[in-house]
Amino acid sequence: MNITILGGGGFLGQKVAARLAAEGTLGGQAVTSLTLFDIAAPATPKAAFPVHALAGDITTLPDAAIPAGTDVVFHLAAVVSAAAEADYELGRRVNVRGTDAVIDACRRLAHPPRLVFTSSIASFSGGQDAVLGDDARQVPANSYGAQKAAAELFLNDAARRGFLDAVCLRLPTVVVRPGRPNKAASSFFSAILREPLLGLETDLPVPDGFKVWIGSPRSAVGWLLHAAAMDTAPLGLDRSLSLPGLCVTVGEMLAALEQVRPGASSLVRRAADPVIAGIVGGWPAAFTAQRARALGFAPHESLVDVVRAFVADDLDATRRDRGIV
Amino acid sequence: MNITILGGGGFLGQKVAARLAAEGTLGGQAVTSLTLFDIAAPATPKAAFPVHALAGDITTLPDAAIPAGTDVVFHLAAVVSAAAEADYELGRRVNVRGTDAVIDACRRLAHPPRLVFTSSIASFSGGQDAVLGDDARQVPANSYGAQKAAAELFLNDAARRGFLDAVCLRLPTVVVRPGRPNKAASSFFSAILREPLLGLETDLPVPDGFKVWIGSPRSAVGWLLHAAAMDTAPLGLDRSLSLPGLCVTVGEMLAALEQVRPGASSLVRRAADPVIAGIVGGWPAAFTAQRARALGFAPHESLVDVVRAFVADDLDATRRDRGIV
Repeated sequence: MNITILGGGGFLGQKVAARLAAEGTLGGQAVTSLTLFDIAAPATPKAAFPVHALAGDITTLPDAAIPAGTDVVFHLAAVVSAAAEADYELGRRVNVRGTDAVIDACRRLAHPPRLVFTSSIASFSGGQDAVLGDDARQVPANSYGAQKAAAELFLNDAARRGFLDAVCLRLPTVVVRPGRPNKAASSFFSAILREPLLGLETDLPVPDGFKVWIGSPRSAVGWLLHAAAMDTAPLGLDRSLSLPGLCVTVGEMLAALEQVRPGASSLVRRAADPVIAGIVGGWPAAFTAQRARALGFAPHESLVDVVRAFVADDLDATRRDRGIV
Repeated sequence: MNITILGGGGFLGQKVAARLAAEGTLGGQAVTSLTLFDIAAPATPKAAFPVHALAGDITTLPDAAIPAGTDVVFHLAAVVSAAAEADYELGRRVNVRGTDAVIDACRRLAHPPRLVFTSSIASFSGGQDAVLGDDARQVPANSYGAQKAAAELFLNDAARRGFLDAVCLRLPTVVVRPGRPNKAASSFFSAILREPLLGLETDLPVPDGFKVWIGSPRSAVGWLLHAAAMDTAPLGLDRSLSLPGLCVTVGEMLAALEQVRPGASSLVRRAADPVIAGIVGGWPAAFTAQRARALGFAPHESLVDVVRAFVADDLDATRRDRGIV
């Protein structure tokens, strides 16, 4: 199998690449080559098959990014929510025109490749009490969500036309993200676990009872790999899936932290922020995800396992990257 | 009020222009100028205010199409269903890039204009037994519908950002269309009324019990004008509306024809066509349209009135245009 990861330099792209390198197979078939594409040439994992790194702009995708014979494309390249809200043209260019360029590249291939796309729960609105079914209408409250929902429509249509074989995964809020706190309204959901594990204080802008729909990096990578190998015939016209994430309260997250690292939650300061609470308060906190479950997408691990996995997979690297001794 | 009609040379654009010219007002305010834009310079009605005709490409919209001081834009420009299915790039260019160009033009204005957009029930699937509510998910079964649904997302987002004040109307299948039969799968819905009134035979490819969701040209124009003047505050994040069309069977249409022109329905030949039946059989045949009704969109006139209105408004012109004596 020849595989491409667009956005291969990002956090999830690197994790998918590492899994493919470690396992050497996808859906029981041997991986024969891997191409990682991003704005800057991505780091490449050691693997038993050739791994290529390519830099470029997604809207002017070079042929080498999705070369002849490509079987699977992971399309993870995106301008994320805060950036797409701050710069309308940039979001439209990368998230919409970029996806069109990916469709055109797939269409040029002799055989339509599997295309796994990361959409987002930010394409929905709803709020704390919402439990969204698989037929819920996408009414985005931000440009990122609107662009992701539109990209789903274009990929569904491209699949119907036979240009590619799409699976669109609406990822939950990914927790625990490695790296640093950032200006995204959702940043604190990871920070309240990550920062205390690094020995650092952090602010909690919402009440302890606040609910959020999360997906761990391990679950996200597992879902992406499952989407790359699954039978797509049962999807019919609707190639988009909401995933079996976890509906948790902030208080439950802190309890899991406390279980893994007793005392760590004392580094979390309650600092109510009505602006942030207002933004994240518009996101749906739960999905039924019945379709994805029926199609074999793995149920989510427990919160304690999420925290333990971050410690095992990402804590040391995060400490190193941020120069924390 | 300064008004622009994009797609002003089309059948509905010309009817909206004629109504504005005849009434001289929109929502109780005097019309001060009208600009009609299309691929070829549209015919201009006689009016008490200046009417400009402009030709150009929607994706490179000239500033004069939406000049400074524009209050209302009707965005009716589109590549229709059969053409968008036959030519993927053309549909994407006009229906998606074109809408982006309209958003950008509105954004340049000092005051965000009202933007009335014609979306379509082709953005839904469902079939003969579907009755779609206002929160129904759009799962298009054709490129035109996918492009219209995506344009709705972009216009909703542009409205949220304050670039414009959007109302997106999902028009039912318009019956009776003037002109000639064409290759659109839906062509026969108008042809079975129009052709017999012209004294011509025509084919009916579906059974008499087949249901369709229709909107007359008069209702469509009325809805467009209402959307241009309504209070948009109650729309919130969701600026898209399904309209109070009429769910009718083909048999009921022929009975109405018979009532207006006894004997005319004998010109309709039953000629089952499984391909056409398959395409139109995937379209939803009914919508609740509760939101639009509550927002003051007029209920639909009766089928007999639809046929009478075609005779009064369009039959002579159609006969003339087609050289039928």
